[in-house]
Amino acid sequence: MKLVLLSGGSGKRLWPLSNDSRSKQFLRVLEGEDGKPESMVERVWRQLDAAGLRRSSYVATNRAQKEMIASQLGGDVPVIVEPERRDTFPAIALAASYLYSEENVSLDTAVAVMPVDPYVEDGFFGHVGKLESVLAETGANLALIGVVPSHPSEKYGYIVPSGAEPSAGGALGVGHFREKPSREAADQLIAEGALWNCGVFAFRLGYLIGMLADRGYPIRHGELLDRYGELPKISFDYEVVEREEKVVVLPYDGYWKDLGTWNTLTEEIGSPTIGKGIVTDDAEGTHLINELDIPVTVIGAGGLVVAASPDGILVTTKEASPRIKDVIGGGSPRPMYEERRWGRYKVVDYVKYPEGYEVLTKRILIRAGSHISYQLHRKRSEVWTIVSGVADIVLNERPYHVKPGDVVRVPEGTRHSIKGITDVELIEVQTGSELIEEDIVRICMDWDEIPTNQFIG
Amino acid sequence: MKLVLLSGGSGKRLWPLSNDSRSKQFLRVLEGEDGKPESMVERVWRQLDAAGLRRSSYVATNRAQKEMIASQLGGDVPVIVEPERRDTFPAIALAASYLYSEENVSLDTAVAVMPVDPYVEDGFFGHVGKLESVLAETGANLALIGVVPSHPSEKYGYIVPSGAEPSAGGALGVGHFREKPSREAADQLIAEGALWNCGVFAFRLGYLIGMLADRGYPIRHGELLDRYGELPKISFDYEVVEREEKVVVLPYDGYWKDLGTWNTLTEEIGSPTIGKGIVTDDAEGTHLINELDIPVTVIGAGGLVVAASPDGILVTTKEASPRIKDVIGGGSPRPMYEERRWGRYKVVDYVKYPEGYEVLTKRILIRAGSHISYQLHRKRSEVWTIVSGVADIVLNERPYHVKPGDVVRVPEGTRHSIKGITDVELIEVQTGSELIEEDIVRICMDWDEIPTNQFIG
Repeated sequence: MKLVLLSGGSGKRLWPLSNDSRSKQFLRVLEGEDGKPESMVERVWRQLDAAGLRRSSYVATNRAQKEMIASQLGGDVPVIVEPERRDTFPAIALAASYLYSEENVSLDTAVAVMPVDPYVEDGFFGHVGKLESVLAETGANLALIGVVPSHPSEKYGYIVPSGAEPSAGGALGVGHFREKPSREAADQLIAEGALWNCGVFAFRLGYLIGMLADRGYPIRHGELLDRYGELPKISFDYEVVEREEKVVVLPYDGYWKDLGTWNTLTEEIGSPTIGKGIVTDDAEGTHLINELDIPVTVIGAGGLVVAASPDGILVTTKEASPRIKDVIGGGSPRPMYEERRWGRYKVVDYVKYPEGYEVLTKRILIRAGSHISYQLHRKRSEVWTIVSGVADIVLNERPYHVKPGDVVRVPEGTRHSIKGITDVELIEVQTGSELIEEDIVRICMDWDEIPTNQFIG
Repeated sequence: MKLVLLSGGSGKRLWPLSNDSRSKQFLRVLEGEDGKPESMVERVWRQLDAAGLRRSSYVATNRAQKEMIASQLGGDVPVIVEPERRDTFPAIALAASYLYSEENVSLDTAVAVMPVDPYVEDGFFGHVGKLESVLAETGANLALIGVVPSHPSEKYGYIVPSGAEPSAGGALGVGHFREKPSREAADQLIAEGALWNCGVFAFRLGYLIGMLADRGYPIRHGELLDRYGELPKISFDYEVVEREEKVVVLPYDGYWKDLGTWNTLTEEIGSPTIGKGIVTDDAEGTHLINELDIPVTVIGAGGLVVAASPDGILVTTKEASPRIKDVIGGGSPRPMYEERRWGRYKVVDYVKYPEGYEVLTKRILIRAGSHISYQLHRKRSEVWTIVSGVADIVLNERPYHVKPGDVVRVPEGTRHSIKGITDVELIEVQTGSELIEEDIVRICMDWDEIPTNQFIG
């Protein structure tokens, strides 16, 4: 059995902590095993390991999240990257083609697909593992997991069983699906034995590869990547699940929760205060999550979520918190904090002058042994002040050693890279006419080809 | 008549916008004449001008506020600076000695003393002007202004008239004083005709100079400055007003308010949002004052004050807001934003490394024609990246011109200064073992003595 974890999300629902490169699943707000903060992705990865499924797992995601996944789960996690954002049907098709042509997985192998961030107890993954035998035993084309509802939620989709007797493995036939019912309809659905759709399903690899072939799409990964833009922008649920007749559901009667909004997330956060700040005792039910160095003080105001990051500061009642998406609107301002393969950065100051140029100051960490790509910028100069650790840098093919207190000027057009010998921190001041992350021209250079004795300084 | 405005305050009550160098009176949160933001000090100064009292006015303050006053009111405002913080009796005695020996004010001249920041209508200053004739006409040693109460406040002090008939000028004899009564006692006091003590009083200069001489204190300013530490730490109210028998009060029946806490201040702020951010319509009665570049979003939470500055972020119900002083506690962390005689700075990033050194990044503005003192630091290096405007700098007696993109290194012990030719902005990265404002050795240097043709660059 293979497992594909879908990691997507535009990241607006948990603004300001989430942004386009750091969706909710990457926020380290949960309490991990030894009390250390843990993200939803890290938690699921740890649970997969415990369930013996980690070596069979792949992450399907987009470019923006690729580095974040490497940063949180390690660089050896197999990641299948969409060339552009479409929807879950194209993403799952792409993952299937990867397993087929890149990993040589046999067409008989069961593939389970699930979101990368369900908040569940460990037993959930035992159920995911059972889907393989459910497929074999029932002869179904699709096997879903349905969560036994704990309350008549209006937010979830429901899977209504067909009423037939369960299989030996406990799976039920599926009658139909129902999205976000009213409270009354939800009561009725639960009385009929309906289950919550938690977005977990399995099929044999041959099922999806056959479907692609039938429709005239390439089944080899490289070709499908090239023609990815031709795949319809549609969800797997609409395109496949709801049209399939041979579909069964395996009930899961345990803890499951979608931590997608501030009010559901804060229910799972143990400490009322994460980060620098104070919440007075009489501010009952208020959660503070502060990623800034600036202290936050909450006095007497209960039932709030106060969340602060370099992207913004949110103060909301818990009930009103799901409105954040609408209030923030469609714009995607530049992320003020990002984790990358080589480390992380935080924007600490930004000014746009009326004269038409901009100044942006970052604090950057480059991890020991990691480096940024060899690159140049067309529209900005950079000044680096090394403040901690030691590093190697290359400027227009000349290598240097740098240490705290050293200042490096990188004028427009200068080819440059930096590699941490130890963890190294620097303050970068960018000045130029247009300061965007996309202003990068990457140049081939192999760090290992620079003889050690050539470094200056 | 001369007017002495007392400017003090530790600045905790309006945290995080106020700090030790920027007390509440300097916050630009009021709406000025043409809709421009205005501080309490700027408002009073404008009202004094309109009342014809500005040329007779002096500001008595401490070192920490001296530069802020110059920045907001202009460098030509006469400022009398306490050598150390004591209390209002010593501060007023010092001001009296200044008027006597430095300004040669005659001993018969009336001196009115008032806080620098009452929130009043213009007519209030007409009453202040009348105190001179009240003193002359009644023969009293002290003439106070008493505000006709609008409600039985438990927060203010009351002046209880003696019951005698008013003088021709409308002044009443004073029976006794009563501090912060209970609600019931306040009702009773108002029924007896008591007035709020708004901290405004007048005396003839000779009255206070005579008092100093009687007690063996110097009456000349220079000598009193030298022996300032000998003056008792006591308020003028306790030391003088409540002991004086010949004291009258002039009733003022108009608008007066002490904008000392967030709940009283926000009642006078027109716009619910100052600075970058959004308050949703259903968050009724919530005020947002944001001095950060980071946007603040308030959703659905009513009756709050949300205030953000580089020093901190406050979220409080209006009723609970006076508790801020207790919650913040006694510590005085370094100010993250200051206005100075030469411009202003903002701390944008600060890190203390476990290895025992610190990194602090500031964005600094130096105004055209202004300069910092010629100085050196013993425990820190600085790197300046000029990002806007042009300036002259001096490093170890060598003068240079600098422009945007130039980088200036100022290692420990380097003598340095910078003077704006235009307004100039720079990003300063400080690194060192102890980053405190006090690590400054000032050296004599006259900018005007550097011949223009000696500048390099």
